[in-house]
Amino acid sequence: MGFSEKIRVLHVDLSSGQIKRQELDDEVARKFIGGRGAGTYLLGTLLKGQEDAFSPENPLIFATGPLTGTAAPTGGRYMAICKSPLTNLVACSNSGGQFGAELKRTGTDLLLITGKASEPVYLLLEDEKTEIRPASHLWGRDTHFTTAAIKKELEMEGAKIACIGPAGENLVRFACIINDLHRAAGRSGVGAVMGSKNLKAVVVKGSSRPEAKDNELFMDVVKDRVKTLQENPVTGQGLPSLGTKVLDNIINEHGAYPTRNFQTGVFESTDEVCGEALVEKGYLKKNRGCYACPIKCARVTELPTGAKGEGPEYESGWALGAAVGVKDLIAITEANYLCNLLGLDTISCGLTLACAMELFEKGIIKREELQGGPALEFGSSEALVFYTQKMAYRDGFGKNLAEGSLRLAKSYNAPELAMAVKGQELPAYDPRGVQGQGLSYATSNRGGCHVRGYLIAPEVLGIPEKLDPQATEGKAHWVKVFQDLTAVIDSMGMCLFTSFALGAEDYLALLNAFTGRGYTLEEMMECGERIWNLERALNIRFGMSPESDTLPERLLKEPMPEGPQKGNTVRLSEMLPEYYKLRGWDENGIPSGETLKRLGLDQV
Amino acid sequence: MGFSEKIRVLHVDLSSGQIKRQELDDEVARKFIGGRGAGTYLLGTLLKGQEDAFSPENPLIFATGPLTGTAAPTGGRYMAICKSPLTNLVACSNSGGQFGAELKRTGTDLLLITGKASEPVYLLLEDEKTEIRPASHLWGRDTHFTTAAIKKELEMEGAKIACIGPAGENLVRFACIINDLHRAAGRSGVGAVMGSKNLKAVVVKGSSRPEAKDNELFMDVVKDRVKTLQENPVTGQGLPSLGTKVLDNIINEHGAYPTRNFQTGVFESTDEVCGEALVEKGYLKKNRGCYACPIKCARVTELPTGAKGEGPEYESGWALGAAVGVKDLIAITEANYLCNLLGLDTISCGLTLACAMELFEKGIIKREELQGGPALEFGSSEALVFYTQKMAYRDGFGKNLAEGSLRLAKSYNAPELAMAVKGQELPAYDPRGVQGQGLSYATSNRGGCHVRGYLIAPEVLGIPEKLDPQATEGKAHWVKVFQDLTAVIDSMGMCLFTSFALGAEDYLALLNAFTGRGYTLEEMMECGERIWNLERALNIRFGMSPESDTLPERLLKEPMPEGPQKGNTVRLSEMLPEYYKLRGWDENGIPSGETLKRLGLDQV
Repeated sequence: MGFSEKIRVLHVDLSSGQIKRQELDDEVARKFIGGRGAGTYLLGTLLKGQEDAFSPENPLIFATGPLTGTAAPTGGRYMAICKSPLTNLVACSNSGGQFGAELKRTGTDLLLITGKASEPVYLLLEDEKTEIRPASHLWGRDTHFTTAAIKKELEMEGAKIACIGPAGENLVRFACIINDLHRAAGRSGVGAVMGSKNLKAVVVKGSSRPEAKDNELFMDVVKDRVKTLQENPVTGQGLPSLGTKVLDNIINEHGAYPTRNFQTGVFESTDEVCGEALVEKGYLKKNRGCYACPIKCARVTELPTGAKGEGPEYESGWALGAAVGVKDLIAITEANYLCNLLGLDTISCGLTLACAMELFEKGIIKREELQGGPALEFGSSEALVFYTQKMAYRDGFGKNLAEGSLRLAKSYNAPELAMAVKGQELPAYDPRGVQGQGLSYATSNRGGCHVRGYLIAPEVLGIPEKLDPQATEGKAHWVKVFQDLTAVIDSMGMCLFTSFALGAEDYLALLNAFTGRGYTLEEMMECGERIWNLERALNIRFGMSPESDTLPERLLKEPMPEGPQKGNTVRLSEMLPEYYKLRGWDENGIPSGETLKRLGLDQV
Repeated sequence: MGFSEKIRVLHVDLSSGQIKRQELDDEVARKFIGGRGAGTYLLGTLLKGQEDAFSPENPLIFATGPLTGTAAPTGGRYMAICKSPLTNLVACSNSGGQFGAELKRTGTDLLLITGKASEPVYLLLEDEKTEIRPASHLWGRDTHFTTAAIKKELEMEGAKIACIGPAGENLVRFACIINDLHRAAGRSGVGAVMGSKNLKAVVVKGSSRPEAKDNELFMDVVKDRVKTLQENPVTGQGLPSLGTKVLDNIINEHGAYPTRNFQTGVFESTDEVCGEALVEKGYLKKNRGCYACPIKCARVTELPTGAKGEGPEYESGWALGAAVGVKDLIAITEANYLCNLLGLDTISCGLTLACAMELFEKGIIKREELQGGPALEFGSSEALVFYTQKMAYRDGFGKNLAEGSLRLAKSYNAPELAMAVKGQELPAYDPRGVQGQGLSYATSNRGGCHVRGYLIAPEVLGIPEKLDPQATEGKAHWVKVFQDLTAVIDSMGMCLFTSFALGAEDYLALLNAFTGRGYTLEEMMECGERIWNLERALNIRFGMSPESDTLPERLLKEPMPEGPQKGNTVRLSEMLPEYYKLRGWDENGIPSGETLKRLGLDQV
């Protein structure tokens, strides 16, 4: 296939069974890059705003970027985009593995799925051929069984599969999509939307390798940036050897390792559960990389129980560990495996459990409500494994947990105990120890999230330069830049982890070499800003109130009780007005007409 | 096959490959009944006394009783008999399942294995045919893999298999033999002796059903006693519905549920781990019985992790739970599964870990000795699962644990922290709350053991009548009677659990109806006494010092710190002299010449 600048959409309507191909205007590619940007643009053309996330009207879009499936380092990412049943805002979940690259090789940039099948089905894309196939025999099965069963029945060497587990089928509001067995489009409940469509899996097999506008130039740029990644201490050494779990001790020593539902920022048993422990105890067998990845941060693990799998990564290990007070690395790893098998987002799973444990600790959830299940005590590895399973099936008390922490806490009239922003559970950094990260959480377009503006890099790790984590001055600027650049990287189809080593100029070189679009640096960053504002505008259309640009009360009002961050809260009010101003939004966080016009979003 | 009174021995010498059949004198059957009695007699004819348990000279005997393989209720038991590498005394471990009955049907009462194979082998007995087959391909594999692999390679419908796991191969001093996947000849390291012979498995397949001397009479007696068992509240209801774990709450409420290496007798989390919890949490799937068993106390279980197996039973659940302070029923059950897969005795495994945990708690074992493994903290479910695996492979700190609690504690100059008698770990009843059980432990011929004289029945459960558990008067008599009757039941080939419902007269009726031996009640009980004295005499020959008729110092000197038994110790000195006297032993516990002569043991 020759170089194409058009964004090719394959549209499958599961209600009617219609399959159509279409192309988006050239201008869309240039303005929104592709991937996250183009997919969100497409979402905006399809939703009026008030549709329920589980209605057939809510589309599910698998979006690849222009560099997905190319030789670009980590160029194998895709995003799953829809309206989220957890936040009721834009859901946009990124995943690695091999699936995204293979989807691209079928000749599709965006796979748009609408409607709802009358019976469980799966979708098969084999180059130009598209087929809707029955999947009733797979309904109820876990992601590994499903993947193996489809491979067996299709006998199709090299097919890549993304699917949901029981959690997605049962509309757990934080169900994920699992591709290539161990990779997840994890957050915001994209798996539940897939389940609401009776869609069990998407299978892709393609043979057309995407071609660059200037292949020689592109390969030169690629080689150079792979070298940069290999020589960088984080992407060349830290992540390959310890994976993301290199962070456990760093963040805990910083006093920002959220423990027992963010009641403190120091976990007394970090040495038992950290990345180093995973190695020393012999659970780590080797590391593994996604498509075209020179970093290879994935952890292939095996437990003394004989169970095998991948992970836990930093966020998952934390959510199923310190967040619930569990220091048993075997139980943590098992719960992580279970999340992958059942199709649950590990962060929301762990933090919803943590919320339930605090409700139990405070006597608000009563023992008799647990229907014979183990006590919901912080530190109970049994409760961890037990309720992880129960929530995926909405069985017993799991029914309450399947709604996520905010709905759970609200049902007990204690919404302040949900450590969530805009309904989505927070990740593994207590912002009382990292002010800019607090602003990033409060303003993230998908709620509690660390991969929309990872301020930990400058504020804790000193990348690209060290900022005072307790300063608030200037953080609004940093947050804006990080949010915009991240939108660019996601939309290109590359992994955010490259940004530990690469800067905006590197992404520009890669993007221009491949697409020939000749962006200036300013133009590329404006694409990021445009995507951010598009998401914001859609969120407002979906009913988001700007008052939700905030954090759980605990983080704003309860001083950190101990450790290096003792006494600190997040001083959000010192940063938020400046952020709004920098964004060109009014004092209520609404993008001004002028800003939207400048960005070419006035028609949105 | 017609009725035979002779005890038929199949002798396989693994060093030479010779296979011989022989018969024991009629008198042996009459004097020692069969099974445990006859097997121990045979052991005594083969060992001088000072042989190492791991030397090729130590025979391993699979002994069935006269009622094994018959219609007698629970008539499927066999014993594995040898010199123990844990106690250096007589090892004699009882197991159920189907293996014993099938062994009997090959026409063999006692399978005698001597010598040592030069390479790993397994033994195949198919009726008269006996074959030594290569097993190098199975070495290192767990018991379930081994069982499945042998079934596959032999394609022999209905074959029953007893085998060892890695623990037996690695000479863990408390390795067990696993038959029929889930049943264990558990204690005293019989699996390690099997491993020392390079014998991975014994496979049996037989077609000759044993015939009674008077079949009509026998079947009448059987029917009647099955009815008794079915109508009894313990064997007809308690054990079928909750299994042995019906005891968790009973013993804990009695204040005799040994917790954290017998530091107390009350476990604060019993409600999380008890038999009732196993049901309520949905882990229990159904119950299952051994050969010809109307009680069906085995627990078929499945965890939320997807792991499946049987158990835990009461002793196992306690040893891997309260004994190590773990209240996580998932981890307890997993550790139990691991013990079955790896071939570890659950009681010794748990209590050796408990001993190590107390050594760690007291700062005697240092963190750096653990070679990166998790902290050996009471309550750590991770340490439980981790070190269970490590000890089976003698890997890392597991090497120290594989020696058992007494050798471990001695290596740290703290033998008082090993909760063991004669080197074998104690089971799940703190004798400070049950005086007679204390005497039973102190005098058991295989060291710490609850199935040589289960005084819990009268002292706690009130079967056959309620005794004051804190009285010492009269307990010597009860212990002697229980020890002797148990020797009879074991030697017949029936399960001790029948004694919750049946009395000595019932066993007499069954034994006489099948064998036609026409014992009087006194004669039968004298057989039990004879077997007990035979074991005692062999133990003395093997080097046992009568001073070892004692209990860990803690149980004699440290008053129980809390609960219903608060303030109590075991008042052993009030019972032991009377016991010796009743036994016809001198004040040092040595059987008098007169006693041995009366029992026809003067030649032993």
